[in-house]
Amino acid sequence: MYAVIMAGGSGTRFWPLSREKMPKQLLKIGSEDTLIQLTVDRVLPLIKQEHIFIVTNQGIAGDIETQLTHRFGGSWDRNLILEPEAKNTAPALGLSAVHVNRIDPEGIMVVLSADHAIKNVKAFLACVKTAELAARQDYLVTLGIKPSRPETGYGYIKAGEPCRESGLSGISHVERFVEKPDLKTAQGYLASGQYYWNSGMFVWKVRTFLQEIERHMPSLHQGLMEFQKSIGSGREADAIRALFTRLDPVSIDYGIMEKTGRAAIVPADIGWSDVGSWTALEDVTDKDASGNIISGNVIDFDSTDSVVYAEKRLVATIGLNNTIVVDTPDATLVCSRDRAQDVKKVVEELKKRKSEEHLTHRTVNRPWGNYTVLEEAERYKIKRIVVNSGAKLSYQSHHHRSEHWVVVSGTARVTNGDKVYDVHTNESTYIPISTKHRLENPGRVPLQIIEVQNGEYLGEDDIVRFDDDYNRHDAKKRSPLPELPK
Amino acid sequence: MYAVIMAGGSGTRFWPLSREKMPKQLLKIGSEDTLIQLTVDRVLPLIKQEHIFIVTNQGIAGDIETQLTHRFGGSWDRNLILEPEAKNTAPALGLSAVHVNRIDPEGIMVVLSADHAIKNVKAFLACVKTAELAARQDYLVTLGIKPSRPETGYGYIKAGEPCRESGLSGISHVERFVEKPDLKTAQGYLASGQYYWNSGMFVWKVRTFLQEIERHMPSLHQGLMEFQKSIGSGREADAIRALFTRLDPVSIDYGIMEKTGRAAIVPADIGWSDVGSWTALEDVTDKDASGNIISGNVIDFDSTDSVVYAEKRLVATIGLNNTIVVDTPDATLVCSRDRAQDVKKVVEELKKRKSEEHLTHRTVNRPWGNYTVLEEAERYKIKRIVVNSGAKLSYQSHHHRSEHWVVVSGTARVTNGDKVYDVHTNESTYIPISTKHRLENPGRVPLQIIEVQNGEYLGEDDIVRFDDDYNRHDAKKRSPLPELPK
Repeated sequence: MYAVIMAGGSGTRFWPLSREKMPKQLLKIGSEDTLIQLTVDRVLPLIKQEHIFIVTNQGIAGDIETQLTHRFGGSWDRNLILEPEAKNTAPALGLSAVHVNRIDPEGIMVVLSADHAIKNVKAFLACVKTAELAARQDYLVTLGIKPSRPETGYGYIKAGEPCRESGLSGISHVERFVEKPDLKTAQGYLASGQYYWNSGMFVWKVRTFLQEIERHMPSLHQGLMEFQKSIGSGREADAIRALFTRLDPVSIDYGIMEKTGRAAIVPADIGWSDVGSWTALEDVTDKDASGNIISGNVIDFDSTDSVVYAEKRLVATIGLNNTIVVDTPDATLVCSRDRAQDVKKVVEELKKRKSEEHLTHRTVNRPWGNYTVLEEAERYKIKRIVVNSGAKLSYQSHHHRSEHWVVVSGTARVTNGDKVYDVHTNESTYIPISTKHRLENPGRVPLQIIEVQNGEYLGEDDIVRFDDDYNRHDAKKRSPLPELPK
Repeated sequence: MYAVIMAGGSGTRFWPLSREKMPKQLLKIGSEDTLIQLTVDRVLPLIKQEHIFIVTNQGIAGDIETQLTHRFGGSWDRNLILEPEAKNTAPALGLSAVHVNRIDPEGIMVVLSADHAIKNVKAFLACVKTAELAARQDYLVTLGIKPSRPETGYGYIKAGEPCRESGLSGISHVERFVEKPDLKTAQGYLASGQYYWNSGMFVWKVRTFLQEIERHMPSLHQGLMEFQKSIGSGREADAIRALFTRLDPVSIDYGIMEKTGRAAIVPADIGWSDVGSWTALEDVTDKDASGNIISGNVIDFDSTDSVVYAEKRLVATIGLNNTIVVDTPDATLVCSRDRAQDVKKVVEELKKRKSEEHLTHRTVNRPWGNYTVLEEAERYKIKRIVVNSGAKLSYQSHHHRSEHWVVVSGTARVTNGDKVYDVHTNESTYIPISTKHRLENPGRVPLQIIEVQNGEYLGEDDIVRFDDDYNRHDAKKRSPLPELPK
């Protein structure tokens, strides 16, 4: 069995905690682990690391790798499949199938979302094993969640006749997929016992899946086969970009599942939630006696049925009811609970305004550590830079800015033009404009420096990289598929 | 006539915009001017600058002086009367009366609050002139606001028999002062036409007022007379501190007005508001079509009857109703509109926690400019310091910290031990621990520096001042009363 974990989601509905470069799957929501860490952890009893693949985009691949290495050890570089651009789930799963197919055409693909929550892991694994049986007999199996309430925010699947093959008891054919219903319809679905929430989790044999793509999405299939031929030529990055550029975005439901005659459903009672908005926080976190979920530096008086999420900054709330308050260093959301789905409108508005509060947080992770923008003005910018023990930034220069560095903890090894020297706590140095430089932490404890940039242009893209431990100077040439497992 | 403007209020109900060191009277609320600037501006047509006195505390005296000089020009040093500690209004007005009495025992004192709003200035000035007539005939006159709604948040005054003296038509004796009523009582008051809101504005002859203090608060009177004797001895700062320490806090209403037989009331229909909480913002600011008052960097969808105050940080609001959101760099308030009075509970809680978000803002004004704390950690602190053209900080040293200064605009003149030198934009310098130093802006444009402090203790009180343009090294010896006007 192979896991394909879809981790390309942009998670706008958890803004301002989620950002384009820090989507929901990378966040800790109701747990000490992030959602993607939890997702990997859940399947590890069934599927070994080298058979777990995460399909995502270049922008967050580094963070995913860092999170998985941090949590599970080892290198996760060979586990990442990179979509060149987001085209919904069908192209991403097609690309993933090409990779699994190279390893084992008879392999069973377990398709999971990186940003969902599942309370009952044992029941989940049992469902996957049941689904595997049907997948071996060439069904495209979906895990259908037993509804616990007349939810109007999910699509539903109607179960049909039981599968009659031996060993498939409890598994049914899918009668049809249905869109998000209105409340009355949802109440009928719940009462009937025949409808299940569409969780977006699937189990199928990779050979069957590719056949169904060929039948129902022939041009995607043809593109994937052409791409497959390019593998090993050194041109695969270009080939996949060319393919994805011309593809229409299509969901796997619409492209395959609603059309195939081979869809089957395994009923799953596993405590699942898509954690689809701030109101879904209650699926993964306990409420207090007043129905609130409150975390961080909060002073509350008398609020009820509300969510108040803060970090270090102080948030004071008084007498709120059914209100969501989310505070981050650069943006605060205050939202009526019944409008949680409209958070995405704020993100759209920010894009329109060409603001940046939907893109990144003030603190941005890097393979060598992280930086936090403390202040931005027209001609200067201040950052706190944390470099992990033994790590180094790229050897680089800037056309438009000079940099003052003050070390506030640890020791920095600085390459500055043709000199290399150490700068200790409470010492400073100056990097002139256009000078090639490098910052490195040769020590055992994290290095923290305060950087004051001066210049006429202070964008992150004013950087020329000459050498980089993390190969970021030629990221565009990276193959979308990892090397095959040994 | 003399104005005595009471400006000692701590304005906790406008937290987090107001702070102990930045109370409501110093804020711009519904205007480009601050409330104290508006208060002074209102009386200037009747009373010349040298007869306007502001009674306040040492902590905000500097900011008041700066604001008044900035708005009206000239020096306002001789207009400040300093309470050594807050003991409610009776002691503060007694101290002010001693000062006015030195200039003119027959003088008429117009007592005003620095943090109220008045829309109809012309009507206000007419009321003061009417009140002056009664004050000349030894009445203690209060301006009673004609109620426009059954307000339960104000005290009321019941007007009694008209004053029969010639020239006092329209002025009545006060029958009694009443506490804040419940809604039903307030409705009765409104319907009767005999009750007025207690605005806390008074007009009286200083001689009459001191006589009434002698009669109703004899120990305060005795203390004031003893203090008066100390004036000119160089001991007056000590004398006033000793007096205030032993005084009980008493309001002028309770101490004098409710007891005197000489209270009179001038009805005032002047568009007055005490701007007593965030809900009172609508008394001074227009609402939009949805009943909202929104300002700053806000994205709102579909909120109604709400207040959303932001500054540079982004605040997004969706579907709020009757909610108050106030965002500042270090703290955010989200409050149900009907709980606006409870904001003070948050301030109390912050005091209990020994937090600092009720004390000062991230940006703190100084006579030479201002500083903003950008980041605080255990062993370092980062500030942006802005020094006005021609201004200088005190000549100082620190026991526990060294400082790195990076100039990001303008030119700094730096005294560092026994050297004096200039540091230009994009240059830096280093002040070692315990070294006497001084920062000065010799240029024509504001100087901005980024200061990175390193040390084991980084409190603002680790400062030894050797010389200061603003005499802050002996603030405690400053007399509570200014020099007499020439």
